[in-house]
Amino acid sequence: MSAIEEAVAELARLPGIGRKTAARLTYFLLKQPRAVIERLAKALLNLAEQVKACSVCGNWSDTDPCLICADTRRDRSMLCVVEDAADIAAIEKTGEYRGLYHVLGGHLSPLDGVGPEQLRLDSLVARVANGSVVREVILATDPSMEGEVTATYVRGLLERYGVRISRIALGLPVGGDLEYADSVTIARALAARREMTG
Amino acid sequence: MSAIEEAVAELARLPGIGRKTAARLTYFLLKQPRAVIERLAKALLNLAEQVKACSVCGNWSDTDPCLICADTRRDRSMLCVVEDAADIAAIEKTGEYRGLYHVLGGHLSPLDGVGPEQLRLDSLVARVANGSVVREVILATDPSMEGEVTATYVRGLLERYGVRISRIALGLPVGGDLEYADSVTIARALAARREMTG
Repeated sequence: MSAIEEAVAELARLPGIGRKTAARLTYFLLKQPRAVIERLAKALLNLAEQVKACSVCGNWSDTDPCLICADTRRDRSMLCVVEDAADIAAIEKTGEYRGLYHVLGGHLSPLDGVGPEQLRLDSLVARVANGSVVREVILATDPSMEGEVTATYVRGLLERYGVRISRIALGLPVGGDLEYADSVTIARALAARREMTG
Repeated sequence: MSAIEEAVAELARLPGIGRKTAARLTYFLLKQPRAVIERLAKALLNLAEQVKACSVCGNWSDTDPCLICADTRRDRSMLCVVEDAADIAAIEKTGEYRGLYHVLGGHLSPLDGVGPEQLRLDSLVARVANGSVVREVILATDPSMEGEVTATYVRGLLERYGVRISRIALGLPVGGDLEYADSVTIARALAARREMTG
């Protein structure tokens, strides 16, 4: 396989990038100064080398704990539970939330073999059970069926600890993906969160 | 800038990839085994290191001359002139053309500052002027206004050398981009090429 074919094949592995787009990107890169390609390759290698999951919240970060967990100005009484680290970036962009996060690493999906053991639930319970600090948990799983089921399951796990449990408001388009919602919608949904009761 | 932000910024430089898509690709890569990212980065670096323009035809290649120019079974009496190396890949995929190529490196576009000096025209004239070998030149520039103007200009340069000059048939959608046409359309357009006369 030639270097061009190899680049096309590797780029075509990325989600949403077919062979034609991969070829277009490859020919685009060939026309760029060598430094541009090297900078892109280096940035990708840095991802693999420097970025790890934060041992506290599960967010992707090049520090451990991540900058959010380490930030003493954040409100430690609030914990926002999300499916993926990408959701944190989307919520942070709104600038409306000052608490901490917890990444589950997905949602419950028995058909895909994702049960409670596959999610970061033990560490969530430990953070909440740890008494005095956390006073409210906002369940910001995706506004999809699986996200709702997961939120309900997490509420069941946490209700014994006497914390306030709320669900991000479904101002988000139902069936959608939190990560792709716009900042205004996310901010509104955070503000209109409702208490979650049995 | 964190490693994540850097990866997003570098990916967002690629054509057709905005910040949201770049973020989605970055989070996708973070979930992959490290080897996947390394393979992608290596493939990109190989592009920069190994791929050069063929000194004969201008095609991108990791050999010089490129595999097409070096292939003794190809018909050396035919020369297909294209705007970009990506067009060669599209024509080769049809399997209908057995001659050689010449890459101009773009089309005439005075408003963008692209005049005859910016295109690989001297080497084209030299190949054609070199007597006995080339008998037909197929002008396969894009079926756009600039492509037509460029074809007409090239015909003017070559007509004194007594070679047959043809233009790829406009079975291609007018205003389109050769690189993205499907193989059947390209093959049909090659077969229906018409002689180009003053």
